[in-house]
Order: sequence, then structure tokens, then C-alpha cells
Amino acid sequence: MSTKVRVTIWNEFRHERKNEAVKKVYPDGMHAAIAKGLSASKDLVCRTATLDEPEHGLTETVLKETDALIWWGHVAHGDVKDEVVKRVQQHVLAGMGLVVLHSAHYSKIFRALMGTNCSLKWREADEKERFWNLAPGHPITEGLGEYFELPYEEMYGERFDIPEPDKLIFVSWFEGGEVFRSGCCWDRGNGRVFYFRPGHETYPTYHDANVIRVIANACRWARRRVTMATDKTPNSPALEPIQKKTVKFGRAGVQQ
Amino acid sequence: MSTKVRVTIWNEFRHERKNEAVKKVYPDGMHAAIAKGLSASKDLVCRTATLDEPEHGLTETVLKETDALIWWGHVAHGDVKDEVVKRVQQHVLAGMGLVVLHSAHYSKIFRALMGTNCSLKWREADEKERFWNLAPGHPITEGLGEYFELPYEEMYGERFDIPEPDKLIFVSWFEGGEVFRSGCCWDRGNGRVFYFRPGHETYPTYHDANVIRVIANACRWARRRVTMATDKTPNSPALEPIQKKTVKFGRAGVQQ
Amino acid sequence: MSTKVRVTIWNEFRHERKNEAVKKVYPDGMHAAIAKGLSASKDLVCRTATLDEPEHGLTETVLKETDALIWWGHVAHGDVKDEVVKRVQQHVLAGMGLVVLHSAHYSKIFRALMGTNCSLKWREADEKERFWNLAPGHPITEGLGEYFELPYEEMYGERFDIPEPDKLIFVSWFEGGEVFRSGCCWDRGNGRVFYFRPGHETYPTYHDANVIRVIANACRWARRRVTMATDKTPNSPALEPIQKKTVKFGRAGVQQ
Amino acid sequence: MSTKVRVTIWNEFRHERKNEAVKKVYPDGMHAAIAKGLSASKDLVCRTATLDEPEHGLTETVLKETDALIWWGHVAHGDVKDEVVKRVQQHVLAGMGLVVLHSAHYSKIFRALMGTNCSLKWREADEKERFWNLAPGHPITEGLGEYFELPYEEMYGERFDIPEPDKLIFVSWFEGGEVFRSGCCWDRGNGRVFYFRPGHETYPTYHDANVIRVIANACRWARRRVTMATDKTPNSPALEPIQKKTVKFGRAGVQQ
Repeated sequence: MSTKVRVTIWNEFRHERKNEAVKKVYPDGMHAAIAKGLSASKDLVCRTATLDEPEHGLTETVLKETDALIWWGHVAHGDVKDEVVKRVQQHVLAGMGLVVLHSAHYSKIFRALMGTNCSLKWREADEKERFWNLAPGHPITEGLGEYFELPYEEMYGERFDIPEPDKLIFVSWFEGGEVFRSGCCWDRGNGRVFYFRPGHETYPTYHDANVIRVIANACRWARRRVTMATDKTPNSPALEPIQKKTVKFGRAGVQQ
Repeated sequence: MSTKVRVTIWNEFRHERKNEAVKKVYPDGMHAAIAKGLSASKDLVCRTATLDEPEHGLTETVLKETDALIWWGHVAHGDVKDEVVKRVQQHVLAGMGLVVLHSAHYSKIFRALMGTNCSLKWREADEKERFWNLAPGHPITEGLGEYFELPYEEMYGERFDIPEPDKLIFVSWFEGGEVFRSGCCWDRGNGRVFYFRPGHETYPTYHDANVIRVIANACRWARRRVTMATDKTPNSPALEPIQKKTVKFGRAGVQQ
Repeated sequence: MSTKVRVTIWNEFRHERKNEAVKKVYPDGMHAAIAKGLSASKDLVCRTATLDEPEHGLTETVLKETDALIWWGHVAHGDVKDEVVKRVQQHVLAGMGLVVLHSAHYSKIFRALMGTNCSLKWREADEKERFWNLAPGHPITEGLGEYFELPYEEMYGERFDIPEPDKLIFVSWFEGGEVFRSGCCWDRGNGRVFYFRPGHETYPTYHDANVIRVIANACRWARRRVTMATDKTPNSPALEPIQKKTVKFGRAGVQQ
Repeated sequence: MSTKVRVTIWNEFRHERKNEAVKKVYPDGMHAAIAKGLSASKDLVCRTATLDEPEHGLTETVLKETDALIWWGHVAHGDVKDEVVKRVQQHVLAGMGLVVLHSAHYSKIFRALMGTNCSLKWREADEKERFWNLAPGHPITEGLGEYFELPYEEMYGERFDIPEPDKLIFVSWFEGGEVFRSGCCWDRGNGRVFYFRPGHETYPTYHDANVIRVIANACRWARRRVTMATDKTPNSPALEPIQKKTVKFGRAGVQQ
């Protein structure tokens, strides 16, 4: 099947408009750089959305037409409206994929889906990060070698307060002495979530071929395969005969 | 180590005061029945708390002194204050155990920790439930055989919208044709969570010796071993020397 | 990507030649029935292999050209040569997928990959089996509903002595009172393993559309994505400078 | 419960008798050093066993009386008799705990229980290893801080060819640029397995307080809770009535 994956790249898009250092690296925003990178793959059909658009660009219609949503946020997590977070969460639970990048570890949507604080250690020191590939047979690492490096990145260190990943894809080595689970998979509802660590705004990380390859693979892996909401608790008739009991019990009335 | 486990049994305690059928089975409330059952074990030190107490009986002090919190709720999930839910969640993430019973699958605290809707199928038909023990070597099943039965229970059926359990302890067989993952373990933060399915309010489930045994074992398994909050993201100095880079990067300013 | 998956269907092929009841259901062998079913999908390119062929039909060349291997065995597990088992195991660890059917729970290859006894309860009583779909968003359940049934099957009951599945896809309900984890995923090395329960030789299970759909999906999910042997432990030069230590240590000589 | 844990420390005990450098660090063998360290904990009752004793010191009686077995091996994995390996494996599956140390990643028993090659990268360069604690609330890390270090160790690097751990406890950072999953938990049958990385024979690793603490905690965590063999597949009578079917099926005869 030559499945097309409809990708929506969501970006906070604040740093790039206010900070000269960031603007220099991502003149049109990180979403534009990621979109450019992904669009080289013909099976990925990209659109973008940003915080300051109406409804943050994430209307019901946009989400329905999205197979995999990429999320980058940092300084403005608090500006994302709770109703939009709930909407995105329900779309993930119904089957949409979600690829969470870098500082979006602290986004409302990621924390809501994980149930934990998603806290970590950090340091901005232009240091080398080496991503060790723990899962060479996994769809997300297709085309990668046993490791890849980024010469300059922000450090994120353990303990990363996340639920045990369903599958751990990358562990990063940092020059300054830390390690980090930098590529993690979880299923949530009928959807799939991938967290991918790199992408500090002052470094050209999203111009890196390996990083783009991982994000592209993650979109394919996480892509929607079904749309089936999980927010109902139906009263369900029996499929098999149930023996009449001689004991009599009351009924408590209201059900959940 | 003769570790004492300080257990707090939280109950919504509404059905038992309003519904004659329930009152007959649990005259002092389900929390009292569970407390009585657990107190036969000398290592479990029990207290109770209910919805209509101030702060739902779950003050900072109570939670700090709790190693394992048991939670039963059903018709009044919506009456539990969000600030108390957040408080309980942070205590779990810091190391407190949580044992979630029956209809508390739909409680705010369980859904917040899971990140999913925790929805399921249900039916009230006085039917037989058989719990198959998938983990005879696990602390939660100590003293149990290969299965145990309850002659009358409400049916809960799959798909149960939960994250893949870190460990699946029981699967239930229902007379009417359904199955259910009726005993599930997860780690969240530094705490542990166990969901245990049985306990419909009109049946004498919490007078059953096997059910009490599982709850007691679960409190031991989930008991607090550490108190370490996870809601901070510290800027962390390097543990190893970092090579000076020749390239110059800007700083984006505000960090998370 | 219109990826072709090269499937090899391995069958013991003893019952079908000796037992009239089985011959009636599968005149050309179960492998032929499965091959017919899968071949309706154009992305699956099937070949077959059976126990009594030279090297059981599983030469190095055949395995190298196989993306997903299906395995059915029952009465003659002991006749499978250890060297062929080792060969298949190394191919799985290097990246080949393996789909293990029914009584092959007790095959040498499955037990070698699991590390456990893979024992279970069983009963031959023409009873109904209902497969509950726990993972509607997973590639293996694409196109299935919330459950499907087989009117007559052999019962397999818990406890199934397997490692905790990386992902649990189906749980079966049996008329006689048991449950079973009837669809289970594991990663092993660079390969993927799926166990699928149904397929007793006297029932027309492999003529069932849902069963064939699951096997087809499993072959796609498990298909080889890489070929990278994992049977080497290389001595590895440092990627970063290591500080000279002032303490002197000996060397123990031989390394693994 | 002041549960006593009966620990058997198994050591290959070859390096210490032949190599002066090793003899200097462990004059009575590594097993003696570990036994000394563990015996400071009154709940751990230690005995030792070595390769060159009859039956490698691992008779049925010894194993029956063992709650947790520790295993260190390196140059003589091939000298361990297959029948003893099978015996140990069945004891683990029946409920005995197993703590696998360092180069025992390549032992027959560990590979048999994992089903994979358990290969890795290595380097002997007196380099620093830092163990990051990913699971501060887990029994195995009780009493540890956020990380601990060993000043000199052999490097083991990813990819470590193991099944996804049920729970990942430590990840190591190495001076030379690698990372390693250095503390991993798995359930196998009714038993529990913990792999713990450090312990190269020329370094005083088993004199280190943190290392001993982890091994002690691991013995408590993995300790036998049940003795229930898993090597039988019983024909099981129905627990519920099975409807007579109108269709007639044959019987295939021999069952597994």
C-alpha cells in the first residue's frame, strides 16, 4: 500500500520571531524547516499550524484530516488553551499519531497523555549528543546506523519523569556526563505517541538529515490506522446466556 | 524488615447512605468493610477518608502519612475537587502507592495518571466472574491459586481504554461472554498504581477473602519506598569537562 | 511504499497425511490453505516449506529470502533438528519476522526465543472461542471489529508460560470458562515475533477470513526491515578521549 | 514480615586462581567478596557455589533451598554443563530469582532465559562509569541517590541484544562515549531475573558499597515467592457447560 501520511506540524513559533539568534537558524520558523525536510518524502503530505492562529490552527477539521501531529513548544506552554489540549488528546486516543519534540516534553498535551510530570535536568552548553540506536529493526530507525551525533545541543538528563516506554528507541550520551532516553514510544488509546529529544531552538538541529529521517519514520510509524473514539462506556447486552441466580440483589441506579 | 504499611482507604460513600440495597451489604460503608478486612493483617495500618469530609479527607498531612491509598468512587467523580486530584497525583508521582478499585476506573485521579479515557463496557446482570491468575510469582498474587471466582458481579468488558499495563496480573472471564484485564500494574513517577476490577456496590465483594487478600497484597506491593517530588526541571552543571566549541551560538533566554 | 513481503509458510504436515478427519479439512495441508488465503493480498508473496523436506525446507537461502516465517507444528516438534532451530533463531535475531501458530507454542523455535516453557492448559471439546480485540489501532488488527468468533476450537487456557508480551493484541473467551492471551507481540533481536492461538487441525480455522486477515497483518507487521546479525561482541575503540588513570590495573586476558 | 532470603552466589572462579592481578583484588574469589558484602544484611543468608565443584555446586537440593541465585561467569561459559543449565532454568521458571552479573551476559543460562544473543560492545580501558538511576521508587534502588559512579570499569556498550526489559533501572554513561542499559528486570515463568552490568575481574567493583547495595536489593526483589513448575500442559476439564454442537469433528489423536 502506498499510504500517504497527512502530517500537521505544530509550532509555538515565538522564539523565531523575537530572538535574533533563533531567527538566523530558522528564518521561517522551525515548522517550516521540518516541513521542508519531510516533504522530500513523497508519502508525507505536510501542513503547518502555529500557536497564534485561531484555535492554534488545530480545529476539529484539521485534526480529523491529520494522521500524525508533530508538536514543538517551549516558552508558551501555558498559552495553549485547555479546550484545544483536550481536543488533541481525544484525537490521539481515537487514533491520530503524535510526535513530541524536545521542549514539548513539558507541553500540556504530552503531560496529559503521560500522566506524569515529564520533568528532567537540562543545561545549555553547546555540547555533543550521541544517539545510540537500541532498536535497529524498528520502523522508526529505518535507514539509520548504530548511532548518530549532533555536534551542539542542549543537554537533557535523567531522571526523565515518564511512564516506562512501551519501546525505547534511542538513549543519548552527553559530553557533560548525562544520559537520556531520547526516543520513546507509547500507545495511548488507539493512537501512538513518540517522544524525540533533540531540537533546541538556537541549534540547526532540524536541518540535520538524521533528525529529519527519524521524524519522518516516526510519522509513518505513528500514523492513524483507525478512527474510533474511546470516550464512551456502553451498557452492553450479554453475548452468552447468563444463568438465573436464586439470590436477589438490588440495583444501585445510576451507572457511570 | 517488618515494614508497616500506612493505608488510607478513600470512599465516595454515597450509595451506602442513600440506597437500601447497598446499605444492607455495607452498613458502615465499603471503606469500613475494606478496613476490617485489611486490619486482620498486622503490617497494614488503616485509616479511612470520604468524599464529604473537608478536603475529601485528603489533606497534605494525610497524604504525607500514607504509603498506599485505596480509591473507590462511582456516581460522584465530578464532585472531587480538581485541586485535591492534583494533590493526590503529585503524591503518587513522589512515591505514594495507589490502588484503584472497580468503578474508580472513571475517577479523575485514575484518568489523570493514565492519560487515557479508561472507558469500558459494562452490564449489571448478577453474573459470575472468574479471575485467572497470570502471575503466580508476583507479590500481588501471594497466597492465591490459579483462579478465584465471584458468584455475582457487574460485568466490565474490553476494550478497556488504558495504557498497556507494565504487568498484567488478572484476566477475568464473564458468564455473558466478555473478558477483562482485571488486575493491572503501572509505575507512575516514583509511585506505583494497581487497578483491581471487582467491587460493585450491591454485591458483597469486599467481604470476600480472595478480594481482600489481593487488596492487601497490592498495598504492600505499591507502598511508598521513597518520597521524591518530580515537579522540578533543574538547570544542571556538567559532571564532565565540555570541550569549547569554535562555533558561536546565541541563547534563547527563558528556559522551561 | 508498496513493500512486497516474502512469506514462507512452514508446516509440520503430518496430521494431514495420516488422519482422515484432518485430511478432509485440509486436503493439501494447512500450509496450502494459509498460502491460498494470504495470496489474495498482492503484497504478500508466499512459498511453503514442510518438515519432511531436506533441512525441513529451511535452508540458509530460503531464510535469507524470507521476510516473515509462519510456523505450524504439533506432534513432531522433536523431529525438528536443533541445527535448523538455531539457524531460524539467528535469522529472527537478525531481522526476520516469525508468526507462530497454535500448537507451535510448544515448538523448539518458539520456546528458544521466549526462554520459558510456553506451557498452557488445553481441551478438545468443539467449543466456541471469542477473540476480543484489545488493540484496535495496531497494524495487526487493521480491518477487524471489536471481536470475532470461531464456532469450534480447541481450548487453550491460562496460565500461558510466556514472558510478558511487549504488546497484547487479543484475549480469548472460551465457552468452558477459560481465558487466553491469544495474540501476543514480542521483539527479539532485530526481529519481531507474533503468537496467534487458533488453528487446531480438525477445524476449518485457516479457512476463516478473520484468521487469515490477522495472519496477513502479522506478516506485514513482523516483516524484515533490516538484516543485521547480533551474534558478535566486538572490542570497540573509544569515541571520546579517556583520561589516563594513575592507578594501574592488570588485564585478565581472554575476553568473551 | 522479616523474610529471610536464601542466596546462593555462583562464581566461575577461574580468573582468581590463575591471574595475579585478579587474585590481588579478590584473593578468595569474587563470590567470597560478594558474600561478605551481602552478609552485612541480616535478612540475606548466603552460600556459595563454583564451577569446579561436582555438578558445579548446583544440585537439585541446593537450588530448592535457594531463593535468589547470583551468577558470575566469563572465560568458561562453555564448561557449564547443559543439564545444569536446564536445571537452573527450570528452577527460575518455577519461582527462583536470578541475578546475572557483568560478563554473565554471555552465560548459557542468561541467553537461554532471554532467547537472544545478549551480545554487546566492550573495551578494557580503565574508564569511568556513571550509573543513572531511572527508577528511584523501585525496590532495587532503595537507598541510592540519583546516580553513582565507579572510577574504573570495563566498558560495555549498546546495542545490548536483549528483549525489551520489563523495567529499566539503570543506564550507564561511559567516558569513552557509549551508553548501556546496566540494570534490567524481566519476569520469566514464576521467577524474576535482574541483569546488573558492573564487575570486571581486575577492578575492585564488588568491594563497592553501592554495587553491593544493588545486588542485595536485587536478591530481595527477585526472591522466590512461590514454587510452581511450569513444564506441564494439562488436559483440563471444562469449568462451565459447553453446548453440544450439531457439526461432527474428528479427533487428531495425540496431544502435546
